Amino acid sequence: MKEKELIKVIKQELNSNYIGDDCAYIKNLGIVITQDNLVEDVHFSMKYISPYELGYKSAMVNLSDIAASGGKAECLTVGLSIPNNLDKTFVKDFYNGMKLACKGVEIVGGDITGAEKIFISVTALGTSKGRKISSRSNAKIGQKICVSGLHGSSAAGLRILNNRNLDKENKFVKAHLTPVARLDISENIGKNTNYDYAMMDTSDGLGEALFAISEKSNVKLVVDFDKIPYDKDLEKFENWQDMILFGGEDYELVATLFDAPCGMNVIGEVQEGFGVEINYGNITKTLTNDELFAKTYNHF
Amino acid sequence: MKEKELIKVIKQELNSNYIGDDCAYIKNLGIVITQDNLVEDVHFSMKYISPYELGYKSAMVNLSDIAASGGKAECLTVGLSIPNNLDKTFVKDFYNGMKLACKGVEIVGGDITGAEKIFISVTALGTSKGRKISSRSNAKIGQKICVSGLHGSSAAGLRILNNRNLDKENKFVKAHLTPVARLDISENIGKNTNYDYAMMDTSDGLGEALFAISEKSNVKLVVDFDKIPYDKDLEKFENWQDMILFGGEDYELVATLFDAPCGMNVIGEVQEGFGVEINYGNITKTLTNDELFAKTYNHF
Repeated sequence: MKEKELIKVIKQELNSNYIGDDCAYIKNLGIVITQDNLVEDVHFSMKYISPYELGYKSAMVNLSDIAASGGKAECLTVGLSIPNNLDKTFVKDFYNGMKLACKGVEIVGGDITGAEKIFISVTALGTSKGRKISSRSNAKIGQKICVSGLHGSSAAGLRILNNRNLDKENKFVKAHLTPVARLDISENIGKNTNYDYAMMDTSDGLGEALFAISEKSNVKLVVDFDKIPYDKDLEKFENWQDMILFGGEDYELVATLFDAPCGMNVIGEVQEGFGVEINYGNITKTLTNDELFAKTYNHF
Repeated sequence: MKEKELIKVIKQELNSNYIGDDCAYIKNLGIVITQDNLVEDVHFSMKYISPYELGYKSAMVNLSDIAASGGKAECLTVGLSIPNNLDKTFVKDFYNGMKLACKGVEIVGGDITGAEKIFISVTALGTSKGRKISSRSNAKIGQKICVSGLHGSSAAGLRILNNRNLDKENKFVKAHLTPVARLDISENIGKNTNYDYAMMDTSDGLGEALFAISEKSNVKLVVDFDKIPYDKDLEKFENWQDMILFGGEDYELVATLFDAPCGMNVIGEVQEGFGVEINYGNITKTLTNDELFAKTYNHF
């Protein structure tokens, strides 16, 4: 994937310990920080998302990164660049959507500029005080692989929207347009875990997250596909199993813990070795880089 | 200006005390934070800026906001979205430019995605520990108006570049492409000031900064034009006085202080009243919103 290659280049140039997790953890400041870009017609289309939903989602995807760190979300800044034809109403709706996602997490600043297409960059800041911060390189042999929520729903919603069905009351469409960052579950984990653990959100798909944890922690993740929670109505879609594993944008959490916390389901175990093994009943498949590349959304 | 109108909408919607300064000051965390978007063909053109210079400037404009707060720059995150035809070399050069600007300030994370045009959003984080943080609403009657550096050079550089003269050794072109945030002067002010003061950088022009301080502090700023430091070669340009006052992107500091610190020049005084008065010898002009609108760069 081009993104991975470029991240490799960035890591080489910066030679930094910080790059690699959903959030950078600045220990001496007690801060976790994350920044995500959302680009019109790459990450979203104004054909199917409203300014309100766009604001909501822009905030939520960053809050989800804070959740993945185990930190406490504190505040957000927003860089918003918009075409000249968009006016006050767009900005008002966008910010109201953000506010709904933020609940108590304050939007403290940012920038607004012109642009040909909509560019959004949100930075979220959290604190580590009283929390154990995760790292995708911290998975330990014997830990259980735990996931929150349902997987594949967002991908199903996107497929519905791409078929020009703008049914915004559809549960899958809702899952895609207005996901919920799992700050509740993250808080429980961050506050009550006293050992090293890995945690990521499933923004780029469950498979991608499992692969990243395996790679960074030098361990094998063995997953029982049947244990991954999903909405049974997903089975009506073609290649629904791929939606569960590669769909992305569910913004659920996947963590390796010695005990499954409230609100999470155990889908497998961390073992000695490398890679990700998915057991479909009697069939075992090993997740490959090529399969991830082919099935995970690539915005380049 | 459309930007001002939109910021007003954002302030209304957020009803936040944080919005308004170059940085948001999160007192309970001891943090200052700022985020700026740079959009291709709005804020820069690849016709005259190299990837290295672009990376340098992207970091520097945000470090300048930290300097304007009086805080200590600590780290940066970068959201970079680039077209598919740009490759590893671009990313490598861009990050090396950033590194040069950062010196010791670490780049800790961010995002890289695809986009039709280059979109950059940098967030800079600073700390307030041992520093007095500025606010543009803190100017007090009797304080001196102090500025660092030379004014108008960046605007002259941009005019040279717009005339398709890519003389990168030209001092004005250098001032435009590789400005230097005044973290040194800011440190001195932040560490040694024990009273409320206003400070901004001149990213949008000296006139714009003076106007903002006057407006937010409910005071009159009286400036002696002849005392504003500038490069004498500027006088070769048409409307060179406007470059000094409205040019922008010099990234110098303007502050209201009771004593002018080392490296700054006094250009006027804070008085009772409203607005900005510029004295050109015997002629006194009042800066108006309309003049600012007409002469300050508007990216919408």
